[in-house]
Formats: sequence, structure tokens, C-alpha cells
Amino acid sequence: MSGTATTSHGERLIVVDWGTSNFRAFLVDASSGEVLDSRRSASGLRALSQHEFPHYCASQTDDWRQREGAACVPIYLAGMVGSARGWAEAPQLALPVSAADLADRVIAAPGLDNAWIVPGVKQVTPTHVDVMRGEEVQAFGALALAGVDTAHCCLPGTHSKWAHLDAGRLVDFTTLMTGELFHAVRFHTLPGEPAREDAPFDESAFRLGLSRAGAPGGVMHALFEGRSRHLYAGLERGQVASFLSGVLIGEEVRTMHTARPEIETVYLVGADTLRESYTLALENAGLTVEALGSDAATLAGVTAIAARHASRRASALAD
Amino acid sequence: MSGTATTSHGERLIVVDWGTSNFRAFLVDASSGEVLDSRRSASGLRALSQHEFPHYCASQTDDWRQREGAACVPIYLAGMVGSARGWAEAPQLALPVSAADLADRVIAAPGLDNAWIVPGVKQVTPTHVDVMRGEEVQAFGALALAGVDTAHCCLPGTHSKWAHLDAGRLVDFTTLMTGELFHAVRFHTLPGEPAREDAPFDESAFRLGLSRAGAPGGVMHALFEGRSRHLYAGLERGQVASFLSGVLIGEEVRTMHTARPEIETVYLVGADTLRESYTLALENAGLTVEALGSDAATLAGVTAIAARHASRRASALAD
Repeated sequence: MSGTATTSHGERLIVVDWGTSNFRAFLVDASSGEVLDSRRSASGLRALSQHEFPHYCASQTDDWRQREGAACVPIYLAGMVGSARGWAEAPQLALPVSAADLADRVIAAPGLDNAWIVPGVKQVTPTHVDVMRGEEVQAFGALALAGVDTAHCCLPGTHSKWAHLDAGRLVDFTTLMTGELFHAVRFHTLPGEPAREDAPFDESAFRLGLSRAGAPGGVMHALFEGRSRHLYAGLERGQVASFLSGVLIGEEVRTMHTARPEIETVYLVGADTLRESYTLALENAGLTVEALGSDAATLAGVTAIAARHASRRASALAD
Repeated sequence: MSGTATTSHGERLIVVDWGTSNFRAFLVDASSGEVLDSRRSASGLRALSQHEFPHYCASQTDDWRQREGAACVPIYLAGMVGSARGWAEAPQLALPVSAADLADRVIAAPGLDNAWIVPGVKQVTPTHVDVMRGEEVQAFGALALAGVDTAHCCLPGTHSKWAHLDAGRLVDFTTLMTGELFHAVRFHTLPGEPAREDAPFDESAFRLGLSRAGAPGGVMHALFEGRSRHLYAGLERGQVASFLSGVLIGEEVRTMHTARPEIETVYLVGADTLRESYTLALENAGLTVEALGSDAATLAGVTAIAARHASRRASALAD
């Protein structure tokens, strides 16, 4: 088979990134990677019951799938959609994992023709237990976009992920609760009280927070300084959120850099709204930042997995 | 004046520990330290408006204060009652501070005769900003109870305090948000979800949490293991709260011990409900624990401050 036949029917595919809070779908030209159309909604896992997944997915993609004289365009789904709380569980693979391994373990999404769910990954050792769904696809996408096979990726978010890839394989990753802790501290603790209202990003307060991460009292004291500095050291009400964010992102970067002092360059994937602050934090730690867009990484990762999956299916059919 | 006359009127005094959530009052024999009567209520600062403080305090202590032929028994108040949100602000003293310094800066509580508020302390340097109200009194009480003048005290709680005393003076302290973070994680994050229901303390899960604090991913990853270990490593639903508690208390002890590796013995003050878990955590770090009751420490601390204050007032009147 030729390369362009790895996805059937005119070299198109549909990529769906379906998480807890959001649904995003892209119609892609498989050979060029060009996005021909896209859709987003807030219909994440939280908004749907299990039996609604095939119907909702079809309703969002049907007009892209029907082409005269051709079978329907394939759909590849990544993210929490493959968890036990999602459409169907695609069991998580143990490390090390390559993009080809993910392609080989794609499962058919029940109730919709030619729709496939990409599995996540897990790491279970006595000293480290971790899970990931969706970010591993972005990490492989980052390799493809950057044209490298070895990289350290930082994927910020509610549960930030640091993924380490070596010779095209994901060999290690760590989740840090940065985003979720920021929200919990901001809305549910005393130091967060002045930060509950929205305020613009304040770089000097953020940098002060960065400098407090790793101080002798540790992160649990540094967060309290959101209060004590507000009382006694000139930290203004409108600066507290940026300070607390600096403490937590600073702790994330400090911890990951301490664990792997050999890191020089970090591929910062996604974090469109957090890119400025993560770039400041990473550069403050002496790291070089290569920033990549979240959608671009997802599309590159899923496209690579889909190409391998389609090629294997075609071979199997040809046998 | 004789020693027994340091508090007027039959050697009694009233000690009030008045915090954000609780009011506790003790009628004390000043010379023996014996508690003659006590009262508690949930009328902490949160439950009262500022003008209600003198009235509420009087209503709780009037029957203890009136003694035939004598002026009223003095009241000494410690805790958040002396903050700007409390009855009246008793400005916080900068370190180093002795019990005598606190006595010298006691303020009169407006609107009630012979009632005195003990100030808190603060630490403001470029690299450490911290505040405390109430625990410093307990730390001085711990010195008195233990018969020492140099000690490291751990006072667990919503905002845990580690206080370092040298030659009778408080020279350094650190606040860690252990209790408040535990609550925020338990009730407002995904890993905390299985921990929302009450479950009995589980020592093995707590010890597992202790062992995770200080692991390469840091505390922000260790908290996430509350989820990943629940999914993939046999951590049961009913064990998650104890695990998360172990992570946070373990991080508190680890951070403080790293900052002061010379610590051998820790005076564990208060923490009646947390005594078991803090003792496990401290001993797990190789520290020797001397446990002291919270009320006993408050009473010993306030009684010492009151004696000095009454003696100075008597001297001033005699001049």
C-alpha cells in the first residue's frame, strides 16, 4: 500500500480530544496534517452519561464523515474518553511505551463505525504510581513537531505532567497537582481569600512566589506567605493570586529539575493561558524553553498513531 | 509585694483562649496553677461581631469574677482575639521575644474592666515573613511545663507552627498550612474524592504517605498518588484520607527537620486529636517526642505572662 493510503478514503481523518470538561474535534488532511475544520464544546465527560458518547460524537462529526462513494472517515479519540468514566475503557499501557505501542492497542469505540480510542499509560512501581490519558499523545506529537526522538516535556494543567522520552519511547512521567492545588488554595483557604476575585497577572508577585518555592519552610510554608506577606510585607490584594501561582509553579519546576538535573531544554506543550508564567518559571530555573501548541501536539500525535493503526489494519485485511 | 500577690484578689485569674472557631475559658488558682472551673463554646471570632466581644466575655466569666469584698478577678486573653478581626488589635511583636516581652506589651481589652489581651508575634525578613497568635503563649508554656529554656516545639493544626526557643526567648518560627491543605485536598480535589466520607485512622496507609513525602516528585506528586494508588496499587477507599494525611504531615516534618538537622527532641504541643499521627511522623523521622497538652501549655504560658504583668502593674501603682 502507498503511504497516502494509510488512512482510507481520501486521506482524511477526524481527531477528537475528549476530556473531563471539553470536547474538541478536528477534520484533518492526513497527508499534510492541515486542519480542514474544527469544533469545540463544553460537553466533556462530566456533562454526559455513558450511553450518550456514540450519539454525541456522531452528531458532531457526521457531516465530515459522509463522502460520496467512500466509506466513512475514521475517527481517533484521545483523552479521558478512554477511561472507565468515559465512552469505553482502553486499558492503560505500562511504560516504556512508543507511539506504535499505542497504535497497536487502540480499541474500537462501541456503537460507532470506524471510531477508535487511543489508550493511556500507567507507571506502577513501589516508589512511583502514576496515570495519564491524552498527554502521552501530545508528548509523541511534540517529538514529531520538533523532529527529535528524545525530549523532556512539561504539559501544564489541572494535573501537570512531566514526560520523559528517550529514543522515541516514553520512559518516565510524573503528575503534579499544580493547577488543582492552585484552585483549592485560592478558593478554599485563608491565604487564598484576597485572590478569589480575578486580577491581572502580576509578574513581580509571580517572581516573588517563584523565589519562595524551595525556601527552608517548603511549599506548605511558602503558600502561607500569601497571607503573611499580604499582612506585613506589601503584597497587595491583587497580587496574591500571582504570588500563589508562582509558589506552586516554582515548586513544580524546582522538584522536576532537582529530580533530573541533566535537563537543559524543556518542551512546553499546551498551556496556552499559562505559557507566559511557565516560561518565566522554567527560564528562572535556567532551563531553555521550546513552546508548542496544545492542539498542534495532539494532532501530530494522533495523526502518527492513526497512520500506524490504519496501516496495520490494511495489512491484516490483505493477509 | 509578696509572690502570691502578683495577681490581685485571692490569687485567681481567668485565662481565655479565643480563636477563630472556639472560645475556651479557665478559672485558675494563680499560685498552684490548678483549674477551678472551665467553659468552652463554638463562639469563636467567626461567630461574633466586633462589638459583641466584651459582652460575650463578661457573660461567660461574670460569676467567676465577683467575690465579696474584692475587685474583679483579672482576665487574660490569648489567640486571634487580639487580631484586627478580633476584640481589639494587640500589635504583634518582632522576634526575638520572651514571655516578659509579651507581658510588657499586653493591652487593655476595651469595654471590660481588668481584662487584658496578650499580643502575638511576627517575623519579617526578606526571606521569611510569618505571623502567629496564641501558639507563642503555648510555646512559653511548654518551656515552663518541661522545665527547660531551650526547645523546638511543634504545634499542629490548621496552620501548624514550629517554634524555636533559645535561652527563654522565641527566636524563630515557621507556619505550614498542613491542616488547611489537608481539608482543601480532601474536599476540593480529585484525589480527595474517596476521602470525603469519614473513615478510621489507618496506620499502614498513613505510613505509606509518610514514605512518599520527600520522594522525587515532591509533595504535589505524592498527593496525586492518593488517586493513582487508589486506581492501581491497592490503596482502598477508606485508606485515602490517612494516606493524604501522611503525605502532608510527612512533608511538614521532613521540611522542618531538613531546615534544622540539629533537632533531636520535639515538644509536641496540643494536637490532642492528631497526637497519634504526629508522634508516628516525628518518630519515623528519628526524632524524640515529648507530648504536652494544649490546655496545659496555654495555662502555663498565660499564667507566667499574667504574673509578670500583674507584678509590673503593682510596681507602677506603688511608685
